[in-house]
Amino acid sequence: MQSVIVDMDNVMANISRQFICWYRRETGEAVAPESLVGKPELGAFPQPEIVRSFLYTPGFFRNVPVMEDSQEVLAALNEKYKVFIVSSALEFPLSLPEKHAWLGEHFPFIQWQQIVFCGSKSLIKGDYMIDDYQKNLDYFDGEKLLYTAPHNQLVEGYRRVNNWQEVASLLLN
Amino acid sequence: MQSVIVDMDNVMANISRQFICWYRRETGEAVAPESLVGKPELGAFPQPEIVRSFLYTPGFFRNVPVMEDSQEVLAALNEKYKVFIVSSALEFPLSLPEKHAWLGEHFPFIQWQQIVFCGSKSLIKGDYMIDDYQKNLDYFDGEKLLYTAPHNQLVEGYRRVNNWQEVASLLLN
Repeated sequence: MQSVIVDMDNVMANISRQFICWYRRETGEAVAPESLVGKPELGAFPQPEIVRSFLYTPGFFRNVPVMEDSQEVLAALNEKYKVFIVSSALEFPLSLPEKHAWLGEHFPFIQWQQIVFCGSKSLIKGDYMIDDYQKNLDYFDGEKLLYTAPHNQLVEGYRRVNNWQEVASLLLN
Repeated sequence: MQSVIVDMDNVMANISRQFICWYRRETGEAVAPESLVGKPELGAFPQPEIVRSFLYTPGFFRNVPVMEDSQEVLAALNEKYKVFIVSSALEFPLSLPEKHAWLGEHFPFIQWQQIVFCGSKSLIKGDYMIDDYQKNLDYFDGEKLLYTAPHNQLVEGYRRVNNWQEVASLLLN
C-alpha cells in the first residue's frame, strides 16, 4: 500500500480564510482573497505583525475552517493508502494541542499512528506528498503535489492540485 | 552533513527509572531494575495497569530524569550532524506539551526545527537512528543503533549502544 503525506495548513485547514476573518475582526479591514495572490502568507496583509500575533493566540488553530471536500476525499484515500498527516506545529507551541484536537473533531477516522507534528519536513519519506510549500516538497523523494494556496499561485514547475476534487481525480481513479 | 534521529523515551529520558519511582510512590512496592530485564515495559511490573495510568497522569513525562551523559553527547553531536529528536507522543496526548517543555528545559540547544512528535516512525528517513524499540529501527533505511533498555536487553541481531558514552565513541570519533 502506498503512502500519502498530507499537510494541514492551507491543505486540510483553510488558514487563508482564517487569517482574513481574524484580520477583519481585529482591524475592521476586509482583505480581499485576490489581494493575497503571489505574496508571502503574512506579508500579504497591510499589518503583518497582527497576522503573526494570531499564530500565538489561543483558538486560532483550533477553529480554522475545514478545506472544502477534504473530509470526504481523505476518508476515501484512507481506505486505499497509508495516509499520514504531517504538519509543521513546533514553531508555534500553542498549535500542537490545538491541531491535535482539531484533527480529532474534523477527521476522526485519522488514528494517532497517522499523525506527525514536526519542525522540518526534511526527514519525511513516502510515496506522495500534498503540500502548499515548495520547501517541503523539495526535500521529498516521492511524487510531489503542490496544493494551490494564494501565496504559491504564481509558482511554476510543480505538479499542482487546485482543490480536493483534483486530489481525488489523481489518487482515487 | 549526515543526520542522526534520536528517540526520547529510554534514550534521552530515563523512563524506566521514572516508572520504578512512580510505582513505588503509588504502591509502596520497590521494583528492582534487574527484574525488568527482557520483559515488556509495562508488563514487567506486578500491576501493569497502574504503570499504564502514569502515561495519562499530568507531570509524568514532564519530570522524567535525563539519561546520564545525554546532554553533553547530544550537544557535541549537534555540532557535527543534523540531529533530529523523533518521539512517539501521539498515543498519549498529555505527553505532547510535556515532552516539548522537557526538551526546552534540558536540551535548550535543540531548535524547534529539529523536533518531531509522531505516532509511527515508519515515515522517518535519515542516516542514523538511535532507538530502544526494534519496531522503530526495522522501518528505518539508515544505520540502526539499538539503545539498551531493560525491555530489549535480551534482543539479538542489532548493533547496540549501551549508554551515551558508547554513542560518543561511535559517532564522534
